[in-house]
Amino acid sequence: MSSHRPVTRLDLHSDHDLSPETATYFAKCEEKLGMVPNVLKSYSFDDKKLRAFTDMYNDLMLAESGLSKLEREMIAVVVSSVNHCYYCLTAHGAAVRALSGNPPLGEQMVMNYRVADLDDRQRAMLDFSVKLTEDPANMGETDRQCLRDAGFSDRDIWDIASVAAFFNMSNRVAAATEMEPNPEYHATAR
Amino acid sequence: MSSHRPVTRLDLHSDHDLSPETATYFAKCEEKLGMVPNVLKSYSFDDKKLRAFTDMYNDLMLAESGLSKLEREMIAVVVSSVNHCYYCLTAHGAAVRALSGNPPLGEQMVMNYRVADLDDRQRAMLDFSVKLTEDPANMGETDRQCLRDAGFSDRDIWDIASVAAFFNMSNRVAAATEMEPNPEYHATAR
Amino acid sequence: MSSHRPVTRLDLHSDHDLSPETATYFAKCEEKLGMVPNVLKSYSFDDKKLRAFTDMYNDLMLAESGLSKLEREMIAVVVSSVNHCYYCLTAHGAAVRALSGNPPLGEQMVMNYRVADLDDRQRAMLDFSVKLTEDPANMGETDRQCLRDAGFSDRDIWDIASVAAFFNMSNRVAAATEMEPNPEYHATAR
Amino acid sequence: MSSHRPVTRLDLHSDHDLSPETATYFAKCEEKLGMVPNVLKSYSFDDKKLRAFTDMYNDLMLAESGLSKLEREMIAVVVSSVNHCYYCLTAHGAAVRALSGNPPLGEQMVMNYRVADLDDRQRAMLDFSVKLTEDPANMGETDRQCLRDAGFSDRDIWDIASVAAFFNMSNRVAAATEMEPNPEYHATAR
Amino acid sequence: MSSHRPVTRLDLHSDHDLSPETATYFAKCEEKLGMVPNVLKSYSFDDKKLRAFTDMYNDLMLAESGLSKLEREMIAVVVSSVNHCYYCLTAHGAAVRALSGNPPLGEQMVMNYRVADLDDRQRAMLDFSVKLTEDPANMGETDRQCLRDAGFSDRDIWDIASVAAFFNMSNRVAAATEMEPNPEYHATAR
Amino acid sequence: MSSHRPVTRLDLHSDHDLSPETATYFAKCEEKLGMVPNVLKSYSFDDKKLRAFTDMYNDLMLAESGLSKLEREMIAVVVSSVNHCYYCLTAHGAAVRALSGNPPLGEQMVMNYRVADLDDRQRAMLDFSVKLTEDPANMGETDRQCLRDAGFSDRDIWDIASVAAFFNMSNRVAAATEMEPNPEYHATAR
Repeated sequence: MSSHRPVTRLDLHSDHDLSPETATYFAKCEEKLGMVPNVLKSYSFDDKKLRAFTDMYNDLMLAESGLSKLEREMIAVVVSSVNHCYYCLTAHGAAVRALSGNPPLGEQMVMNYRVADLDDRQRAMLDFSVKLTEDPANMGETDRQCLRDAGFSDRDIWDIASVAAFFNMSNRVAAATEMEPNPEYHATAR
Repeated sequence: MSSHRPVTRLDLHSDHDLSPETATYFAKCEEKLGMVPNVLKSYSFDDKKLRAFTDMYNDLMLAESGLSKLEREMIAVVVSSVNHCYYCLTAHGAAVRALSGNPPLGEQMVMNYRVADLDDRQRAMLDFSVKLTEDPANMGETDRQCLRDAGFSDRDIWDIASVAAFFNMSNRVAAATEMEPNPEYHATAR
Repeated sequence: MSSHRPVTRLDLHSDHDLSPETATYFAKCEEKLGMVPNVLKSYSFDDKKLRAFTDMYNDLMLAESGLSKLEREMIAVVVSSVNHCYYCLTAHGAAVRALSGNPPLGEQMVMNYRVADLDDRQRAMLDFSVKLTEDPANMGETDRQCLRDAGFSDRDIWDIASVAAFFNMSNRVAAATEMEPNPEYHATAR
Repeated sequence: MSSHRPVTRLDLHSDHDLSPETATYFAKCEEKLGMVPNVLKSYSFDDKKLRAFTDMYNDLMLAESGLSKLEREMIAVVVSSVNHCYYCLTAHGAAVRALSGNPPLGEQMVMNYRVADLDDRQRAMLDFSVKLTEDPANMGETDRQCLRDAGFSDRDIWDIASVAAFFNMSNRVAAATEMEPNPEYHATAR
Repeated sequence: MSSHRPVTRLDLHSDHDLSPETATYFAKCEEKLGMVPNVLKSYSFDDKKLRAFTDMYNDLMLAESGLSKLEREMIAVVVSSVNHCYYCLTAHGAAVRALSGNPPLGEQMVMNYRVADLDDRQRAMLDFSVKLTEDPANMGETDRQCLRDAGFSDRDIWDIASVAAFFNMSNRVAAATEMEPNPEYHATAR
Repeated sequence: MSSHRPVTRLDLHSDHDLSPETATYFAKCEEKLGMVPNVLKSYSFDDKKLRAFTDMYNDLMLAESGLSKLEREMIAVVVSSVNHCYYCLTAHGAAVRALSGNPPLGEQMVMNYRVADLDDRQRAMLDFSVKLTEDPANMGETDRQCLRDAGFSDRDIWDIASVAAFFNMSNRVAAATEMEPNPEYHATAR
C-alpha cells in the first residue's frame, strides 16, 4: 500500500530531470543504502536547498563528535516521538535498531525513552533533548549543568542541542508536507 | 551592560584564530551590516558547521521565493515569539522594523501578531507557522488547503514551512546555549 | 536484553504458586498465543483482580460489536500513542499489524494515526478517541454527532468510548508500574 | 429539574425489561443505598458489561486494601477534578463527605485538594494520582519511591495506581455519554 | 475543622484594630450577610487596598448591567473552576445556588459548566469567559462576534470580559495566599 | 499607521463628553505624561469603572511597597509576556526601559526574562509571578517560602501576588477588547 503514496503532499514539480550533481548523489545513495531516502527526493526540486540540507545533516549526524552515531540517532528518535513525526520515527527508528543491534531499544525510543535501560549519561542527554523540544523558553544554566555533571563537555552540549534542534526543524518540514518514509524502513533490523 | 555578555554560555574555544575563509566572511559582514551577527560567531569554532548554517540560512531568507524578505522575517519573529527566543526576537524583530519601515509592526510580531493589520494572505501564513510550531503532530491537508485558499502555491507552502521549521531549530540552539544578540539590534529602526 | 526485565517494578509477591484457576487460564494462553501476556502475570497476585480485568478486557475487545476487532485494536494503539505507553503500544501495535496484515498501518497507529489512509468512518472514530483521551472535560453532543454522521450507531459510540476509556486506564496501570511487554511482540507480523 | 434529565445522551435501548439477575441487583441497591446509581443503569443494556464493571468497581473500592475506603474515594474525586467529570465529582464527592463526616473535605477534593489539611501520606497518594492522570508518560521510579517514602507498600502502590487509573476510565465513559448523576447526591452529607 | 484555619497563609499583621471606616463596613457585612467574607478580612491590613477592591468588586457584580447578578456569579464560578480556586468556588458557588434556587446548577458551574441546561446566550457567555481565562493570547474579533450573535451588546461584552478578568485576578490573589473561605458557605442553599 | 486604530474594538459610545471629573483627570495625564493612556480612555464610558480601575492601579503600582516601582513594572511585563498582551507589553515595556535606563532590560522582560542578569531576589519574584500566571491551581507554601528565602516579607509577597494578579486581569480586558496602546510608547526610552 504505502509504496504508492507520494513523497510529499505538495506539488513541487519534482518529476523533472535531476541535475547531474543530484543524479550522481542519488546513485551513490542507491549503492550505499539500497534506496534514496524520500527526504532527499523531497528536496530535489532545488539543488541548492538539497545541498544545504545534506551538508547540515551529514555534518550533524556523521562528523566527529563526543556523541556516538547511535546516540545522535537516539536523540533524533526521541525528539520525533515528542512531535509524533511519522517520517523521522520510521527512518531513524530503523537506524537505532540497526546501529544498536537491539530492536527493542529502537521501539523504546519511538514509544517512550523513559522505560529504556540507559546509563545516567544517555538519560541526561535525552532529558535535555526533550525539554529543549517541549519547552525551549525555559532552558537555562541548570539544564546545561546537568549535562556537564553527566560527563558531557561544552562541545558535546553544542552537539546535543544541535541534533535535537535539527530534528525539531526536520519534523516540522515532514509534518507540513506529510513526507512519506520509504517503506523499506519498516522491516529493517527487526 | 549587555555588551559584556558572552556570545553563548558554552565554552567552545571560539577565541582561536579564525580560518582565512571565515575571517573574510566576517569582514564582509562588518562591511555590509556594521557588525558580525553573534549567531555566526557562535558557530565559528567549526568552519563546516558555520558554512552549513549560513548556506541554509541564506538560501531560506534571501533566495528567490514567492514570499518577500519581509514576510520571511515576519515568520521568523512569530515563531520566535511562541518559543520566547530572546536572540531571534531581537535580531529578526529589528529586521521586520527595518524592512517594513513600520516599527509597531515589528513589536506586534514580537508580542502578538494577531493584533496586526494584516491581509488574509499574511494572516494565513502566520497562522500556519504558529500551528506548525506549537502542534506539528496535528498538521494536515486542511492546513495546506488554507494556504492555497489564501493564494499561496505549493512551492510557497514549502517555503513557509521551511522558514518556520528553520526558526524552530535556530530558537532551540539559541535557547540551549543562551545566545546573546548583538546590542546594536535594540535601537535599530525604532 | 529485554527478556530479563521484570514484569513490573512493584514487588507484589507474584512468585507464589498460581491458583489452579489461574494456572489453567495461563496454560490456555500459552497454547493459544504461545505466551502469557505480561499484563496477566502482573495481575496474578490476586485472582479476583485478574478475573475482573480479563472479564472487562475480553468483553470490550472480543465480544460482538459494530466495531471490528481491528478497529478496537486501532483505538487501543492510538490512545496509547497519546499517553506514550510502552506496554500497550508494543502489545497492541503487534495486534494491529497481525489483524490488518499491514505492518505500516501498525506503525502509523503507534506514531501518528493522522498520516494513515483511513476512510472517514475510522478517522472520526480515532479523532473522537484522541479527544476523549486528551480533553475529556470538553466532550459534548457535537462530538457524538460527528460519530453518528460518520455512520456509527449510539451503541457503537458506547463501544468506541469504552475501548478508548479502558486504555486510558490500562495505560496508567502500565505507566505506574512500568509494565514490561513480552519481547515476542517486537518481531510479530513485521 | 435534574430529575428529568436522561441517564446518558446515548440511545442504548436501556428501557427494555431488566434481566432477573440485574433486577435483583438493582433491588439490592435500592434497599442499601435508597437508589440505583445511574452509572449502573447506564450499563444495564448489557448484563455482561454491567457485571464486568461492577466486579472491577467493587473489588477496587471495597475489597481489603492498605488504603481506607475514604482514601480510595479521595483518589476518585481528585482524579475527577482534573478531568472535570460532573458524574464522578457529584457521586464520589458525596461519598467523601459521608465517609469523612467532614463536608468541607469533600469540597476541597472537588475543587483543589492542595488546600486540604492532609498528612504527608495522603498528600503523596493524591500527588501521585494527579501526576498519573495528567502526565502518565512521565511516571517513573522516582514517583514510586515518593509513595514508599510516605509509608506505602508496593501492594498499596498497585491499589493507588489502580483506583486512579479506573477513574480515568470511568470519567471518560461519563464524559463521552454525558452521564447524569442521581440528584440525591447533591444534598447528601452537607 | 475549617473554622480554625487562618484567613490567609501570609502574616500581614491584620490583627490590629480596624480603622473606624472598615469597622463600620464590616458591621454592615455582618448585618446583611451574617458574616464578613474572608476576602475582605484579608485586605483589611490596608484600608486603601480594601476600598479599591470593594469598589471594583461592587461595581462589577452589583451595578446595572445587561448581565443579571446570577449570570455574573456564573462567570465567577466558571473562571474559578478553570483555575481550581477553592476560595472563589466556595463563595461564588454558594451565590449561584442561592440566586438561582437551583443547587445542582451551582455544582455544575463548579464542576463542568458544559453539562448544564443553558440557553445559547449563557453558553456563549461562559465559553467566551473560559477561552479568555485559558488562552487570552488567542482572543479576537471572532470571539466578540459570537457574543454579538448570541444577543449581547458591546457594552455587555465589556461586562463579560471585565467579570471574567476580575476573577482571573481574584483567583490568583487567593491562590498565592491560600485564602480560606468562610465555612458558612458550604451549607448555604443546598 | 497605528495612530488611526481605535482604542478598543468595542463600541462603548465613549465619544460622549467626558464628565468634569474625568476631563480634569485626563488633563492631568496630558500634563504629566504627554498623553492619556488608552486604557484610561477605554474605561471613560463609565466614571465609576474608570475610578475603580485607577484607584486600584495607582495603589498597586505607586503606593509605598517593599518592591520598587521598577520591580512592579517588571512583574507587569513578565506576566504580560506569558499572556502575549500587546497593550501591556507595549506600555509597561516602555516603563521598564524608562525606569531602569536600560533598554535591553525592557526587551528581556518582554521576550524572556530568564536571560536577564537579575539577582536571586528579582528572579524569585518573577518566577513566582510566572507560576501564579500559568498555574495558579498549583501554588502552595513552597512557593511562598521561596520568596521568603529570597528576602521578601509576607507583606512583600502580598504585593508581588497582587501586581501579578492585577495584570492577569488587565491583560484579559485588553485581549477581550483588543485594546490599542498609544503609539508614543514604541519609541520611548530606546
